[in-house]
Amino acid sequence: MTLNPADDTLAARLRDRLDRRAFRDLAPRYLEEPRGTWVGRAGLVVAPSDVEEVSAVMAAAHAARVPVVPYGGGTGLVGGQVVPEGPAPLILSLERMTAIRKVDPVENVAVVEAGAVLEDVHRAAEAAGRLFPLSLAAKGSARIGGNLATNAGGVNVLRYGNARDLCLGLEAVLPDGRIWNGLTRLRKDNTGYDLRNLLVGSEGTLAVITAAALKLFARPAGQGTALAVVPDPRAALDLLALARDHVSEAISAFELMGGEGLRFLEETQPEIRRPFDPAPDWMVLIDLGLPAGIDPDTVFETIFAEALERGLVSDALIAQSAAQADAFWEVRERVPEANRLIGSVSSHDISLPLSNLPEFIDRASETVAGMGPFRINCFGHLGDGNLHYNVFPPKGAPAADWRGQAGEVKRAVHDLVHELEGSVSAEHGIGRLKTEDLERYGDPVKLEMMRAIKAALDPQGIMNPGAVLRG
Amino acid sequence: MTLNPADDTLAARLRDRLDRRAFRDLAPRYLEEPRGTWVGRAGLVVAPSDVEEVSAVMAAAHAARVPVVPYGGGTGLVGGQVVPEGPAPLILSLERMTAIRKVDPVENVAVVEAGAVLEDVHRAAEAAGRLFPLSLAAKGSARIGGNLATNAGGVNVLRYGNARDLCLGLEAVLPDGRIWNGLTRLRKDNTGYDLRNLLVGSEGTLAVITAAALKLFARPAGQGTALAVVPDPRAALDLLALARDHVSEAISAFELMGGEGLRFLEETQPEIRRPFDPAPDWMVLIDLGLPAGIDPDTVFETIFAEALERGLVSDALIAQSAAQADAFWEVRERVPEANRLIGSVSSHDISLPLSNLPEFIDRASETVAGMGPFRINCFGHLGDGNLHYNVFPPKGAPAADWRGQAGEVKRAVHDLVHELEGSVSAEHGIGRLKTEDLERYGDPVKLEMMRAIKAALDPQGIMNPGAVLRG
Repeated sequence: MTLNPADDTLAARLRDRLDRRAFRDLAPRYLEEPRGTWVGRAGLVVAPSDVEEVSAVMAAAHAARVPVVPYGGGTGLVGGQVVPEGPAPLILSLERMTAIRKVDPVENVAVVEAGAVLEDVHRAAEAAGRLFPLSLAAKGSARIGGNLATNAGGVNVLRYGNARDLCLGLEAVLPDGRIWNGLTRLRKDNTGYDLRNLLVGSEGTLAVITAAALKLFARPAGQGTALAVVPDPRAALDLLALARDHVSEAISAFELMGGEGLRFLEETQPEIRRPFDPAPDWMVLIDLGLPAGIDPDTVFETIFAEALERGLVSDALIAQSAAQADAFWEVRERVPEANRLIGSVSSHDISLPLSNLPEFIDRASETVAGMGPFRINCFGHLGDGNLHYNVFPPKGAPAADWRGQAGEVKRAVHDLVHELEGSVSAEHGIGRLKTEDLERYGDPVKLEMMRAIKAALDPQGIMNPGAVLRG
Repeated sequence: MTLNPADDTLAARLRDRLDRRAFRDLAPRYLEEPRGTWVGRAGLVVAPSDVEEVSAVMAAAHAARVPVVPYGGGTGLVGGQVVPEGPAPLILSLERMTAIRKVDPVENVAVVEAGAVLEDVHRAAEAAGRLFPLSLAAKGSARIGGNLATNAGGVNVLRYGNARDLCLGLEAVLPDGRIWNGLTRLRKDNTGYDLRNLLVGSEGTLAVITAAALKLFARPAGQGTALAVVPDPRAALDLLALARDHVSEAISAFELMGGEGLRFLEETQPEIRRPFDPAPDWMVLIDLGLPAGIDPDTVFETIFAEALERGLVSDALIAQSAAQADAFWEVRERVPEANRLIGSVSSHDISLPLSNLPEFIDRASETVAGMGPFRINCFGHLGDGNLHYNVFPPKGAPAADWRGQAGEVKRAVHDLVHELEGSVSAEHGIGRLKTEDLERYGDPVKLEMMRAIKAALDPQGIMNPGAVLRG
C-alpha cells in the first residue's frame, strides 16, 4: 500500500487539533541513532501531551496514510527509532508524557506515562522504599515506552525478568487512533488474549504505547557484590548452579567478562582500577539480594570455598563497602565504552541455551580466528545466556580497514548461534538492523503469523514501516 | 461462516492418515466438565501421537471446515473443553502426547509434550533436584497443554508467576495444520512478536499447543509454613507487606481463608484437624522458601513478633515438621471440596488491585447480605489479589432453592469488581462461562483487537468456536 509524506496538509490538520507546544523543531537527535548506521528521513515532529492527543495524531496520520514512528529516548541499538526510507514520516515523540502518575508501595505498582525516563522511575520507586529493577546503560535517557516497545533487558533479568515481565498493564493507541485502555494493575487477569505482551516487543509496529502499570519489588534487605576469576565459561555456569543451590533466585546479576575486554579497559581507560592484575582470561561479577538475617559475605564465602575446592574459581574479591561494589560494577559498565573507543568490526547481541553456551564460545572463537587476526570481546549477562559477542580489529589497526569482512563475520557468528538453538537478537530487538536475520533464521510459520497479525492491526502499514518486518 | 460436522467422510480421511490407536471411543469424560454446566456435543475423538499427526488432523478439519476443540485433562472450570452447540466437533485429545522430553538442571528447563500431566512434570523436576512451581488442585489430571492454554494460576503465583511466566517456548499447530516451531529454551529472545504469550491463555481458540519448554527453579534450601489469625483482610495485606520487607520475594504462598470456609470444613469434613478453635474470622497461610543459612522459624518469629505488636496478628502457629506443614495446607486445600459438598449459589474467580481488595470484601458482603440470608466463603490467593468469592444458601437450605437469584448475585459481585478496577476472571479464564462478562466489562477496543487477531489466525473460525469470543 502506498504511503504519503507527512506534508503541510497533515501539519495544518494537526494544528487544528493540537496545542502549538506539540510541534517540535526537527532537531538532529530525531534523525540519529547511537550506532550511526542510519539517518532518519526528515519529517514532522509532534509531541502530544496526553493519550487523547496521541489518538488525534494517529487518526490524522491514518486518514492521510502517513508513516508514523513512535519516538522515546532514541537509545535503541537496532535502528527502530528512525525511518531512513520512503515518504517523510510523522515522528511521534512521547517526550511530553513523562508523568509518574502513581507509586503504590502496598500494591507494588507504579503507573507511568510512556515518556517517563527510566532513571526517574527508579528514583520514584526508591522514594517509596521500593525497587523497579529494569536497569541498563542508557537508563538516564531511555524512556519507559521505548523500553517496553523493545522489551529491554539489562543486568537484572536473571532475577526479575525482561521488561515484559515487569509490566502489568498498558494503555496504547492503535494505528487508526482507537485507544485501548489496558492499564490494569492486576497480578492475575485471564480475560482474553494477552494484548499486553503482543505490544511489548513489537517495536512500534503495531501501536503506540502511551502509559504502563509496572511491577515494583521490595528492596532486598542485604546486598552483596563479588568478583571471581573462573577458568572458563563452563566453570562460570557451574558456579552459577552452585550459587543457586545455596540462595535460589537471590542472585540478582551474574555477568561474564572476558580478558580481552579487561585489556580493552586498560588500553582505553587506564584510570579504571584493575581488580586482578594481570587481567584474567575470564571473570564473573555477582550481585546478591538477600532477605534480612543473612549476611551476604558469609554466603559468598561459603559458595567460593566450595567453588575453590571444585576448581570453579581461582580467586575472588567480596566488596567490603557500597563504594567497592560500585567500583566492581564500574569495570563491567565501562566495557561498552571501551568497545566504542576501539571500534568493532561486528557486534552481536545473542543468546543461547545455557548448556550450549560454552560450546558456542569455543567454536565461535575458532571460526573467527580462521577469518583473520581479530580480537574478540565476549561479555554479557551469562545467567540469561545472553552474550555481547563483539569482534575487533588487531591491536592498532583501525576497524575501518576490516569492515569489509564484517558481513562475513556476522554471518558466521549468527549461523553458529542458530545451529546451537540460540537467538540472534537477545535483548536489542530486530529494528532495521536484523530484519534479514529474522527472515533467514526465524521459523517461517512464525513470520507468517507475524505478518497476519501486523495486517490485522495495522492494515495500512503506517506503523514504523520497515522495522521488524520488511514490506 | 458455516461449519460442518465431524462426519464419516472426515473420519475416513483421518483413517488414511492416522494409526488406528488414534481413534478413541467417545467416553463420557470428553463431553463433561467439572461443574456440570454444559454437556458437549458428541463428536469424533482423535488422539494423535505426535505433532505431525496433529498437523494432519488440523489440515483435514480445516479443509472440511469442521470445528475442533483441543482437549487436555478436562479439568477447566469455565467450559472451554466442551462444545455444547453447533455441528459435531472434532475432539482433539492430547492424551497420547505425554513425553517429558528433557529435564535439564543446568539450564533449569524442562521440555514436555502438551499431554504431560502436571504432577508428572513436578515429579520429573524433583527427580532432577529442581522445582516446577505451577501447582493447583487438579494437578493429578490437568495436562500442561491445558494449563498453558488457560494460563493457569494456583498457589505459587505470588513468587513464580502464572503459567505464562513459566513458559519459555511453545510448539503449536495452526488451524490449517501449519506447525510453528517456537520451542526455544532461551531466557532472552527479542526476535519478533511474542506469539508464545498470545497462544498462552487463548483457550484453544487460536491454535493447538503441542509441546512447551518450561522454566524450572532451584528448590529453596529452607522451607517454612505458618498459619496466622488476622483481624481482617486489610491486616492480612499489611502482614504481607511486613513479611516482604523482611524476606522480599521468598514468600511462596500467602493464602487467605475466611471463617465461613473453616465452618464449612467443620460441617462437611469434621475429620480435618482445626488449627484454631473456635474458627477465627480470618486466617492466612504462609509458605516461605528461603536461601541456605537462614532458619524459617526465626524469620516467622521475627515477623509475627512485629505483627503482634502492630495488631496485625492475634495468634500464629509455625509448622514444626513437614507433616504439620501438610496438615496446615490440608485445611486450605479441602476448602473447595467443602464448597462442593455444600453447593454454592454463585462462585466468582476474581482479582482486584491489592489496595482495593479490603474495600471490595466489605462492600460485597453488604451487597450480598442485602440480597438474602446468604453465607459467603471468601478465600484465595491474597498475595495475587485473587479471591474465590463464593456465595452459599443459608445453613441447611439446598442451593437449588436459591439458584433463582444466582444471576442477580453474580451480576452484583462482578459489577463491584469492575467498579474497583478488578477482573471477573482471575485465573480460570473465559471459556463459555464468561463470554458475556467479557463483552460487558472488557474494554471495547480490546475486544475489537481480539476479534481481528482471531480472524487473522483462524479465518474460518474452526478453533473451539463459542469459547472466549462468541460468534
